[in-house]
Amino acid sequence: MEAYEQSHLYRLRHSAAHLMAQALTELYPGVKLAIGPPIENGFYYDVDPPEPIREEDLPRIEKRMKELAKLDMRIERKVAADRDEARRIILEETTLGQGEETALYKLQLLDAIPEGEEVSFFDQQRFTNGKLRRFIDLCRGPHIETTKDIKHFKLMSIAGASWRGDVKNKQLTRIYGTAFETQEELDAYLHMLEEAKKRDHRLLGRELSLFMFSPRVGPGLALWLPKGAVLRETMTDFLRKEQLKRGYDPVITPQIASIKLYEKSGHILTFKEKLFPFMEDEEKETYILKPMNCPFHIEIYQSQMRSYRDLPIRYAEFGTVHRYEQSGEVTGILRARGFTQDDAHLFVTPDQLQDEFIGVVELMQTVLRKLGLTDFRARVGTKDPASSKYVGHDDNWQAATEAITKACDAMGLDYFVSPGDAAFYGPKLDLIIKDALGRDWQMGTVQVDYNLPERFDLEYIGEDSKPHRPIMIHRAPFGSLERMIGLLTEQYAGAFPFWLSPVQIAILPIADRHVEAAEALSQRLKDTLFDSRPLRVQVDARRETLGKKIRDNQGQKVPYMLILGDRDIEEGTVGVRSREQGDLGAMTVDAFLGSLPA
Amino acid sequence: MEAYEQSHLYRLRHSAAHLMAQALTELYPGVKLAIGPPIENGFYYDVDPPEPIREEDLPRIEKRMKELAKLDMRIERKVAADRDEARRIILEETTLGQGEETALYKLQLLDAIPEGEEVSFFDQQRFTNGKLRRFIDLCRGPHIETTKDIKHFKLMSIAGASWRGDVKNKQLTRIYGTAFETQEELDAYLHMLEEAKKRDHRLLGRELSLFMFSPRVGPGLALWLPKGAVLRETMTDFLRKEQLKRGYDPVITPQIASIKLYEKSGHILTFKEKLFPFMEDEEKETYILKPMNCPFHIEIYQSQMRSYRDLPIRYAEFGTVHRYEQSGEVTGILRARGFTQDDAHLFVTPDQLQDEFIGVVELMQTVLRKLGLTDFRARVGTKDPASSKYVGHDDNWQAATEAITKACDAMGLDYFVSPGDAAFYGPKLDLIIKDALGRDWQMGTVQVDYNLPERFDLEYIGEDSKPHRPIMIHRAPFGSLERMIGLLTEQYAGAFPFWLSPVQIAILPIADRHVEAAEALSQRLKDTLFDSRPLRVQVDARRETLGKKIRDNQGQKVPYMLILGDRDIEEGTVGVRSREQGDLGAMTVDAFLGSLPA
Repeated sequence: MEAYEQSHLYRLRHSAAHLMAQALTELYPGVKLAIGPPIENGFYYDVDPPEPIREEDLPRIEKRMKELAKLDMRIERKVAADRDEARRIILEETTLGQGEETALYKLQLLDAIPEGEEVSFFDQQRFTNGKLRRFIDLCRGPHIETTKDIKHFKLMSIAGASWRGDVKNKQLTRIYGTAFETQEELDAYLHMLEEAKKRDHRLLGRELSLFMFSPRVGPGLALWLPKGAVLRETMTDFLRKEQLKRGYDPVITPQIASIKLYEKSGHILTFKEKLFPFMEDEEKETYILKPMNCPFHIEIYQSQMRSYRDLPIRYAEFGTVHRYEQSGEVTGILRARGFTQDDAHLFVTPDQLQDEFIGVVELMQTVLRKLGLTDFRARVGTKDPASSKYVGHDDNWQAATEAITKACDAMGLDYFVSPGDAAFYGPKLDLIIKDALGRDWQMGTVQVDYNLPERFDLEYIGEDSKPHRPIMIHRAPFGSLERMIGLLTEQYAGAFPFWLSPVQIAILPIADRHVEAAEALSQRLKDTLFDSRPLRVQVDARRETLGKKIRDNQGQKVPYMLILGDRDIEEGTVGVRSREQGDLGAMTVDAFLGSLPA
Repeated sequence: MEAYEQSHLYRLRHSAAHLMAQALTELYPGVKLAIGPPIENGFYYDVDPPEPIREEDLPRIEKRMKELAKLDMRIERKVAADRDEARRIILEETTLGQGEETALYKLQLLDAIPEGEEVSFFDQQRFTNGKLRRFIDLCRGPHIETTKDIKHFKLMSIAGASWRGDVKNKQLTRIYGTAFETQEELDAYLHMLEEAKKRDHRLLGRELSLFMFSPRVGPGLALWLPKGAVLRETMTDFLRKEQLKRGYDPVITPQIASIKLYEKSGHILTFKEKLFPFMEDEEKETYILKPMNCPFHIEIYQSQMRSYRDLPIRYAEFGTVHRYEQSGEVTGILRARGFTQDDAHLFVTPDQLQDEFIGVVELMQTVLRKLGLTDFRARVGTKDPASSKYVGHDDNWQAATEAITKACDAMGLDYFVSPGDAAFYGPKLDLIIKDALGRDWQMGTVQVDYNLPERFDLEYIGEDSKPHRPIMIHRAPFGSLERMIGLLTEQYAGAFPFWLSPVQIAILPIADRHVEAAEALSQRLKDTLFDSRPLRVQVDARRETLGKKIRDNQGQKVPYMLILGDRDIEEGTVGVRSREQGDLGAMTVDAFLGSLPA
């Protein structure tokens, strides 16, 4: 992010926002301008227009921007001598004679600039055809040098936005746009958006019957339909098996706890704004819907005396947690209010930290490989030396940071260190996955924690027969099942790898007289283990044409269709159709099974 | 129960309560008597003694009871002519000259008897050694005829109890006792209690590290330790596989829902007292912790148009639910506040009801057989013809009741019909299991439901292209995982069948030099599938004597111990020790694996 904010592209987008504002002042005289920053994928400007602006007006605004850009206006920075001059510039110059009322928001912005701070403006103008075209805006910058470099841009959409983000304030019109340095980049971005729209997991989740939402249940609370539930089970079975191999112990903990538990853990303060409303029984106890699994695993650790010989202890749980996200921020299953973490907590001695960290990273790599997510980097979040928000001794921080970077080196992981991105209780590693559309997703995480062992006064008896403090590692390779399935859905546009597909094989009898043979074949395939799970098979016995059945099953992204007609039954073959390669011709069932991806 | 209340045993226990009261009036002159009824396994009397009565006083009271019983007092019923006479008898006769104050509670009981109702007393007396021994009590009866038949009894325990069950009233002393018709029955009962104490699932749950509770989490909310979690996973994997074979579809639904869902389902009224306090966001929505899975499965059913060709639909979920049981009623995992149902809901056409019911009962039988619970009966709860609490048409009730009994007949199930035991929305079948100690447990259930389809206006399009109402079947073969594991723990006194044992095999290296071979053997066994799951193996590498290791693993109820010493390593054998049969001698690993229970 920091690199982007220093970049030419960032300045270009900022200048594109000004250019759009200039076009608006010409097209909508009297428009009141609020703020117009560059953002991650483009820019926006919040405006209060004299008449409504609609999506269909965007091409006209774009056309005016193109016309203005070509005027090759120099974009110049001007500093006001003092507050009074700044006020005068706003009232006289930025309003362009459209009335003082148009400066309403700018004056408020000026007031918000701390006394003593420099107040700057950016000014672009050209006298042409006997007319002055000018735009001057209160702005910190920076900008590019001339409007003629703003060539490859597009206005994207319109949304509502409150002045200063406060819903009680005036509702403004936010116009989003994007800009790039080359036409190729702009085209690629627009293409990516088109693709992303087609791959939207909310859309595909519905089309493929993976999950649903219901207003009677509430936002951010997914109901998993049979196909989605199978997908989840397949993923958890896989991870459970991998964890078993690596000496993890499963535990299962409650969905709620007395408020006492979260008072002890400190989450009642540090996590307050994400907690659901409490369940308060005036006469008795107050309960909280579980936002985190860690305190429960700590209770289990603490239920008996531990010795150095018992460590490392690795408690794993597919733990459902709830976070009270603002309903406006809820996004399908990517940002949900209830979700299931593939959580685990490791309790280790300082000597074990590095090896255990390596073990965790190795598991994460195994998981991502299996999911087909091969393009990822790790971000090692370390302490910001300038900040005082961190808890724990410097020695611990240094040892843990070293253990993490050494582990990354040992694993040959592609990683970068990001100072200031640590949790307040210890350094951490986040996996950042690049998907098929080039978008970054922050997924799995590993965190080293010195805080909770301290708060709960955790101990183990060392070889020296004295009590010592263990270190905790929090980790979740998927992050959450919901978020990972959201990513995988968009990554594969719903065409999940064979081992993950909810329906792996569809059997298509050509006519009613082939249904019986289809059912027999289905039973035979279901009795076949793949990845030590029974194959997931469905017979499409609908009275539809073969063409329609093929289209529908292709639409449902079923990896293989087996077509069964008279000749197949006679000759003991099936007509095999692959989701990716189309018709593969007739073959025996054994030959088909032999051809399945390992 | 009705049979018991008409029985001689019931009267015997009632008379034993009177006999105890008589002994108390002799031993504690001035004792105030409250009530003394027979109860399920014996009797009690609530008394207000002039000095505290303690458990160590019970033998003395028992001795006096024996002495009184032998006097062969006739127990005679007397009816007071009117209220005044009743009052006189209480004040003059029942007090036995110990002062009017002793009649305090009896007078209040008299006042509570409705005007016009007969007031009766039971009187037993004998003049012996120049002294009148007498006890007369306000009582509805009935009793046995003479005290000399009260021979086989025992006073069990003392507890506090409030007068009239109101905690604001005076705290009384409740003395529990039991009585039987023969010494053999009494001995068997006392032995059963001893056994039950040893098998108490709360005790074994701790000793075998299956689960724990924590005051910071709350009562009735179990934390499952690794061994308990493995036990749960083994059970759910088994049932999941059986359900897959029978055409069930897994679904996964949220832990909470908007209050709207339970308003629609009616649970907000019908289930009110079991709901946890609500999560109320004053500005937004109110959420409820899920008490039942059914409304969620209905939401899924309703998410698309259904045709008769789609039915039956069978949605299965291991659904965690919460019920706000009174903390005094919470009993380990048998009656918990959070528990996981092996829930499923079938949506069927009327034509499918009987077959689907048979399918469900067949699955339940398979489950119980696998769990080794072979002694069970079914109770078919039908409508009480006299009551008006039921919803739905008589035709439906009749058809459903017929479908259930026909299904039971077809399955050769041992069942009895219990009128009045239906749910208000339809008839049901409950499984009643007799455990190793002869105790009855009500476990799995199947319920036919016409009410929720009606409330939610569920439909399917029939062959006639018109909308029809499906019938729902609720079913849970285990009932809940928690309760079933509680039962199994007590049934097997923690020595679970091999397939369910959290640790199936312990490898015991005799000395440190055998640990490496033990680890290698462990890995080999873990790579072996049993019941299509990896064998669960633990190496006991502690530096303890072999004797201690054997004792500890026997105490942990591990089905097999494999002992590994020099000679075994040399000869490629292991010394096999079975939990039930003790030392089985040396054999090869293959021979051992071949001997495992199928």
